[in-house]
Amino acid sequence: METLKIVKIGGGSIDDPLKMKAFVAEFSKLSGPKILVHGGGKTATQLSEKLNIPVQMVGGRRATNRDTLDVITMVYAGKINKTIIAQLQAFGCNAIGFTGADGNIIISEKREVTQIDYGLVGDVLKVNTVVLDLILTVQITPVLCAITHDANGQLLNTNADTIAAEIAVAFAAKRPTELLYCVEQRGVMTNLENESSLIPIINEPRYVDLLHKKIITEGMLPKMENSFYALQNKVKQVRIGKAEELFRNTKNYTTLVL
Amino acid sequence: METLKIVKIGGGSIDDPLKMKAFVAEFSKLSGPKILVHGGGKTATQLSEKLNIPVQMVGGRRATNRDTLDVITMVYAGKINKTIIAQLQAFGCNAIGFTGADGNIIISEKREVTQIDYGLVGDVLKVNTVVLDLILTVQITPVLCAITHDANGQLLNTNADTIAAEIAVAFAAKRPTELLYCVEQRGVMTNLENESSLIPIINEPRYVDLLHKKIITEGMLPKMENSFYALQNKVKQVRIGKAEELFRNTKNYTTLVL
Repeated sequence: METLKIVKIGGGSIDDPLKMKAFVAEFSKLSGPKILVHGGGKTATQLSEKLNIPVQMVGGRRATNRDTLDVITMVYAGKINKTIIAQLQAFGCNAIGFTGADGNIIISEKREVTQIDYGLVGDVLKVNTVVLDLILTVQITPVLCAITHDANGQLLNTNADTIAAEIAVAFAAKRPTELLYCVEQRGVMTNLENESSLIPIINEPRYVDLLHKKIITEGMLPKMENSFYALQNKVKQVRIGKAEELFRNTKNYTTLVL
Repeated sequence: METLKIVKIGGGSIDDPLKMKAFVAEFSKLSGPKILVHGGGKTATQLSEKLNIPVQMVGGRRATNRDTLDVITMVYAGKINKTIIAQLQAFGCNAIGFTGADGNIIISEKREVTQIDYGLVGDVLKVNTVVLDLILTVQITPVLCAITHDANGQLLNTNADTIAAEIAVAFAAKRPTELLYCVEQRGVMTNLENESSLIPIINEPRYVDLLHKKIITEGMLPKMENSFYALQNKVKQVRIGKAEELFRNTKNYTTLVL
């Protein structure tokens, strides 16, 4: 069975319409079955500001009240998802956009309130691949945005990196699957200022070592955690880097292995 | 083959969260294959106002510039579509939301500029039922919002009544199909102030007569045009009235026949 590619688009490509179009053009040419996962970049924050909805950050994450969830739903599932879909169609790549509520694809539960209340944020409980399988069978590309539901009528804001990893894990149980995190930089680097400091391969011992040495930066940390979670759950390979390098297999990126 | 019901939800049910939930509850119980079509009610206008985007009405229709299209995409495909989907899931009705760009379902062309420039408004060229057929086959309910695309990357604002009629016509070519327009009033009435003035059945000669006598009100006119277009193109039956009456076949509505 052909390898399924789960591709997470980077926030930088979403914020800039020209970069977005360039990404979509590259993605549309990527051969084989594929699923795209996206969040909302800075657009949701910008819309919240225009609507005078205060953006509350808790532990580096946006706390999601009802108004913020509305904004996220409008931006992720509306503007960004449908712009990507229309552009993919123009490039000849038939695609359908989804939230986790559509087709009951991702059921999550509202994150428990401890010292921190993240609000309407969901942690993934279950991925149903039935609808995605059906869509892939007819050569249509699913495009998932970072919204899930609790199956009781509540939409929940959910981290896009995590969704990409969970989708990959769900498919890895039955077919070869790889996970691609597209970012702005070349990959995982020991020094963000120095392009040549790219680490081409990271295995688990090396990851632990990098963690101890605090070389992995804050933005990369959740991606690495998601990556090793995916690898530990039958995902064949995870790669992190620039979309054009990942899609062309140039080796100019970071490959994660167990 | 079982009759497919194409249901267009009324704007009034979209504007009020309680009415929306009541509608979704009724719709989820409707037996047999079904497709829901919705627009955006007043929510898009309200968001435009909050964002200081002037709402331009031309000949009773919203003229759609880029900012307005963004708002419509966010409200229709984002907030309203995904709220309906999450609620349908909670009522045990598996559903997937679509624009006409998703799965290439509805291709339209930008309306020609004559004396009036409607902006980014699309007139339907083609309905592809492939994806909808596939979804219906696995007992999932498609929920379509009033946005289409030109297949060249441009989303286009498209009248929801028209979309419902075009979808019905596309299916009517191959299976028994009926079209249900849910509205706030009992149906087509000779006097909106008088509940008992409902016209239970309207055929084409009666329609022409009502038109001549100017009994059909402005809001009902496009619905009637769409209804007779559908009937002339193999749609079995069109009914207009309150959702709860239509879904329960109480006869307390208007039935349109050729």
